[in-house]
Amino acid sequence: MSKQETIQCAVFGASGYSGVELAWLLHNHPVFSLTYAFSSSAREKAEPISVLYPQLAGRCEQLLQPWHSDLLPQLAQQVRVVFLALPHEASAELAPQLIAAGLVVFDLSGAFRLGDPKTHLSAYGFQQPKLAKKVPYGLAEFTQFSGDEPLIAVPGCYPTAAGLALRPLMPLLAPHSTPIVNAVSGVSGAGRKAALNTSFCEVSLQAYGVATHRHQPEMAQSIGRDVVFVPHLGNFKRGILATIYAELAEGVNEHTIADALEATYANHPLVRLVATPPKLQQVVGTPYCDIYFKVHGSQLILSVAIDNLLKGAAAQALQLANQYYGLTSATGLQPSPGAVV
Amino acid sequence: MSKQETIQCAVFGASGYSGVELAWLLHNHPVFSLTYAFSSSAREKAEPISVLYPQLAGRCEQLLQPWHSDLLPQLAQQVRVVFLALPHEASAELAPQLIAAGLVVFDLSGAFRLGDPKTHLSAYGFQQPKLAKKVPYGLAEFTQFSGDEPLIAVPGCYPTAAGLALRPLMPLLAPHSTPIVNAVSGVSGAGRKAALNTSFCEVSLQAYGVATHRHQPEMAQSIGRDVVFVPHLGNFKRGILATIYAELAEGVNEHTIADALEATYANHPLVRLVATPPKLQQVVGTPYCDIYFKVHGSQLILSVAIDNLLKGAAAQALQLANQYYGLTSATGLQPSPGAVV
Amino acid sequence: MSKQETIQCAVFGASGYSGVELAWLLHNHPVFSLTYAFSSSAREKAEPISVLYPQLAGRCEQLLQPWHSDLLPQLAQQVRVVFLALPHEASAELAPQLIAAGLVVFDLSGAFRLGDPKTHLSAYGFQQPKLAKKVPYGLAEFTQFSGDEPLIAVPGCYPTAAGLALRPLMPLLAPHSTPIVNAVSGVSGAGRKAALNTSFCEVSLQAYGVATHRHQPEMAQSIGRDVVFVPHLGNFKRGILATIYAELAEGVNEHTIADALEATYANHPLVRLVATPPKLQQVVGTPYCDIYFKVHGSQLILSVAIDNLLKGAAAQALQLANQYYGLTSATGLQPSPGAVV
Amino acid sequence: MSKQETIQCAVFGASGYSGVELAWLLHNHPVFSLTYAFSSSAREKAEPISVLYPQLAGRCEQLLQPWHSDLLPQLAQQVRVVFLALPHEASAELAPQLIAAGLVVFDLSGAFRLGDPKTHLSAYGFQQPKLAKKVPYGLAEFTQFSGDEPLIAVPGCYPTAAGLALRPLMPLLAPHSTPIVNAVSGVSGAGRKAALNTSFCEVSLQAYGVATHRHQPEMAQSIGRDVVFVPHLGNFKRGILATIYAELAEGVNEHTIADALEATYANHPLVRLVATPPKLQQVVGTPYCDIYFKVHGSQLILSVAIDNLLKGAAAQALQLANQYYGLTSATGLQPSPGAVV
Repeated sequence: MSKQETIQCAVFGASGYSGVELAWLLHNHPVFSLTYAFSSSAREKAEPISVLYPQLAGRCEQLLQPWHSDLLPQLAQQVRVVFLALPHEASAELAPQLIAAGLVVFDLSGAFRLGDPKTHLSAYGFQQPKLAKKVPYGLAEFTQFSGDEPLIAVPGCYPTAAGLALRPLMPLLAPHSTPIVNAVSGVSGAGRKAALNTSFCEVSLQAYGVATHRHQPEMAQSIGRDVVFVPHLGNFKRGILATIYAELAEGVNEHTIADALEATYANHPLVRLVATPPKLQQVVGTPYCDIYFKVHGSQLILSVAIDNLLKGAAAQALQLANQYYGLTSATGLQPSPGAVV
Repeated sequence: MSKQETIQCAVFGASGYSGVELAWLLHNHPVFSLTYAFSSSAREKAEPISVLYPQLAGRCEQLLQPWHSDLLPQLAQQVRVVFLALPHEASAELAPQLIAAGLVVFDLSGAFRLGDPKTHLSAYGFQQPKLAKKVPYGLAEFTQFSGDEPLIAVPGCYPTAAGLALRPLMPLLAPHSTPIVNAVSGVSGAGRKAALNTSFCEVSLQAYGVATHRHQPEMAQSIGRDVVFVPHLGNFKRGILATIYAELAEGVNEHTIADALEATYANHPLVRLVATPPKLQQVVGTPYCDIYFKVHGSQLILSVAIDNLLKGAAAQALQLANQYYGLTSATGLQPSPGAVV
Repeated sequence: MSKQETIQCAVFGASGYSGVELAWLLHNHPVFSLTYAFSSSAREKAEPISVLYPQLAGRCEQLLQPWHSDLLPQLAQQVRVVFLALPHEASAELAPQLIAAGLVVFDLSGAFRLGDPKTHLSAYGFQQPKLAKKVPYGLAEFTQFSGDEPLIAVPGCYPTAAGLALRPLMPLLAPHSTPIVNAVSGVSGAGRKAALNTSFCEVSLQAYGVATHRHQPEMAQSIGRDVVFVPHLGNFKRGILATIYAELAEGVNEHTIADALEATYANHPLVRLVATPPKLQQVVGTPYCDIYFKVHGSQLILSVAIDNLLKGAAAQALQLANQYYGLTSATGLQPSPGAVV
Repeated sequence: MSKQETIQCAVFGASGYSGVELAWLLHNHPVFSLTYAFSSSAREKAEPISVLYPQLAGRCEQLLQPWHSDLLPQLAQQVRVVFLALPHEASAELAPQLIAAGLVVFDLSGAFRLGDPKTHLSAYGFQQPKLAKKVPYGLAEFTQFSGDEPLIAVPGCYPTAAGLALRPLMPLLAPHSTPIVNAVSGVSGAGRKAALNTSFCEVSLQAYGVATHRHQPEMAQSIGRDVVFVPHLGNFKRGILATIYAELAEGVNEHTIADALEATYANHPLVRLVATPPKLQQVVGTPYCDIYFKVHGSQLILSVAIDNLLKGAAAQALQLANQYYGLTSATGLQPSPGAVV
């Protein structure tokens, strides 16, 4: 792009971990500009974002302020794009109002990700919002926009890792086999609120939501096939490492796999195909998804790493916004996005 | 002791970190026996302690139950000794009732540690309980009992580390100098309740309560001199490492210091004088206090390590109870075939 | 047992992590006694074990000494049992000499675990020792001794976790299905020597040895079926958490699984069947294997936790020795008043 | 600056932790350009820097190559500035050759930091290089260049933290008092080579080099007064937290301190005066030094945080280079420098 006018944005839920990452990315973005940062709760008082996140002192003097619905007209006048890093139900309620006011909404919650109402209800415990069926599911490397979508569902962290690894390979898997996704997430995935199970002394590697996690139907929808999914909580702050097991169709070998991955990601700089199983630390603080694979007989094993707050949330949201407005997908995301939390 | 009858005990606050350590130590003790374990909150329901602490499954089937005051007669009939691992004010209120019922009370809170009422009020925010003035302050290696004390104040974690290192050396310090205690504690020192500042993602080495921590007056009282104290929260679960700086009196050298420490601790197996600055990990899970010192000109530097939940709480309480009942101080505290590395 | 005479033991490789755990367990054992502790390398000088492991100061004054073959006659005269916590090839070379001298050998290395010579050569890179074929593979809960076995192969850490979870269930799996073992180990599994990949700054959750780890054939041999195995290095010191996926035979449901596990482990106190996916921290520092399972359609998911240095090495070795000499299997292994939290 | 021509640079020791940070900063710098990156050892083979640091894959294709002295003419022709992130003696030997070839050298080692030859010999164990006496000590906020200095000594990590906190306050301290610097460093401060004491399982909070660390004389020289210094190794990868104790001169109060700090740092954006004791995590991955202070009677307590690899090494070196070439000091260092290791 030669000369791009600034696009004003707002972030809801900017006091949370994904939200602050998004605020910080927008603050440094060459085209998008952070006009408003709303805190997750109306009970919080207005204060500089650097009070909650002192790492931003001297770098980002953005005010973090509570949201009240009477701010909507002013918001609609001043910004074009809104990012929602809110609890699922809060997003479900707020998004339609923002759209009605003419805003483009990128929603990081799960409110609009699932196509099937029953599955949504079962996964999230509340009725699927009416809009949901028409909302594009934005796994960024597989998404193209017409530019008139009012609402985009940003994928969940685990489904981003699993989707990027599996989508290019689905035609190569044994027809009726069920892939297995074993993933470990850092604690930031649970958000910023205090809870016993994310207290420092309580955290210790553990499986949870075994075969019942709400990201399971999202993954299944994303790859078009059922999937077995076991998430784990790890004793680290950021990052997801997913180890994926799948049965290959006859005749598929490591070259077929390599070709499929390379063809898919040749022009996608934020997915890196790596020759060694990735360490989490090589993606933490970055917008990358690193994918390694190994073929062992008819068994395919993938090792996939992302930063759950970046490629799994804030950076992917921004990548989608880049694509939506015709910018290159990595604009403002590299060379160094810089992690905040 | 040749043949000791069992002494029945109860632990209040056994759902907390210090409390569960105490319950577990009593469960395995050759003389004391754990008869009741009360949870910290009356709102918690009765359940096996292994539900909260699954590491104890198959090893300790003790019931953890809520406390109601109408249990007092039964308690007084069945047990002789009560350990309180409760919030300060809860201890202040409960201890007199237990004493009145004829029980011996070892209190791990700060309710009865400070001698001066004004200092207590300022440090704890509530009036000093009436009993407090006569309650012995039980820094174990410096405490002897007549056997008719109804209530013993178990020292705080930081003051235990500082007191054990400094008490033997006070006569050797420059008369009007003020020792400096710089200490780092693991997160378990903050207890088991969920709070933002002890959330996994929020913990990062940081000073807190700079020169205002309530353990400062306790240390000063323990060593009989003012002290500068800066605690820090460290990114680990257990342990306190205190680095102490003090000005030596003229003529004092490393031999004088070594002699004083050796003379003091010759017959105290739970204090180890070590030739290398201790690593935290060498005391974690143990009842020891490891003390290292270095003389640099007229400057004395001490490096002291304890497990905050054991020597800084549960193990010291039990050590005091051992001494109270004429057992050797380390009974039930070593050797302990737990984890080494 | 009423009155058991002391059984003198020696540990080779006692300067390493598994070795020191074993030395410490023997030091506290009611029947076995630690007579000699040999360091891993002949180049190390004799020194108290507490110099290397200061946590043992004041608790275990055992001398750690280099081994020379001219000590063999003296060793053979003084001890009955030898534990080898040595590199694989060193074990392969030393074990026959010790057996020839009349000693009973429990070997913690991989030298004698695999039955098939070709598999051994491929996994370990040296010829299988001649003895190997007759050596019992000691997965403790599945092992019984006649009492005249001269050499016992103590299982590897990963295969212990996988074997304990899968062995009771093999008849319930779909006939031609291949179980998948996804496991994360703490860094102590790599031993005590300095290496770049286990340097503090380099450790970050990562898969390694993908489908090529030498514990894969050991697992396969143990369960009698091929297995897909992907180990990971985690950012913690101790423990293994294995998540296991297997296809169930028709008609098998959660009750069948529960029944099989309960029947197998009813009289085995060191395996705990747990109702919640285990946290690593609930087994660290303990001799337990905690097993959780979930049935999801025809898919079985197991979550299994052990301390790699204890149930995965030292404690299992001692458990086997207990069984060998007719002691109850958990003698000297519980209860262990160590660290709880 | 309006239009700045590119300044070609080389980094020696770019395979180490400080070196790679520097390489990455230069790679993203608007004026400096990374032309050569030499590995720390001549034995390493040439390979893309992303092989050692996979987080840089797709972002920095710089070749990391071994240095041979016959490359000097070519180097001298192509680059203007050289950064040395080498062992002390290697720097001492190489710097004069580079200067003789007309290059400007920023040395991150300790080879040229100390003014006094005896102190240097005692601290570093080799003779002070001849050049050392004229080399400016570049604590960046206190350094101005004439522009013809051939060699600049970049301060050590601990002395950077201590110097920035204490230098502005020296006139306010009690005349003959000795400040105390208690500091905890992350493990990356020990460099990238494998060593037992920085092995993952061995790291645990511990004092080391008590009153004997080579950064003690550097601090003393920097502030013009003796200092007591006790460094500690902490269980984290990056960052230094220094807690500093000093006796105030009569009449000095918190306003005097605040004024002095504010006056000194008003125009220095990379020093942040903070109202709450800093958490390490708020500076990790940033070029900032955060300073907090508290006055308690006549006692001054400072809490100071830096990233040891950035403000304590690579970022400060670049800041100095910025200043040397007339750029604003924070050029290329903010808003987000982005940590690599």
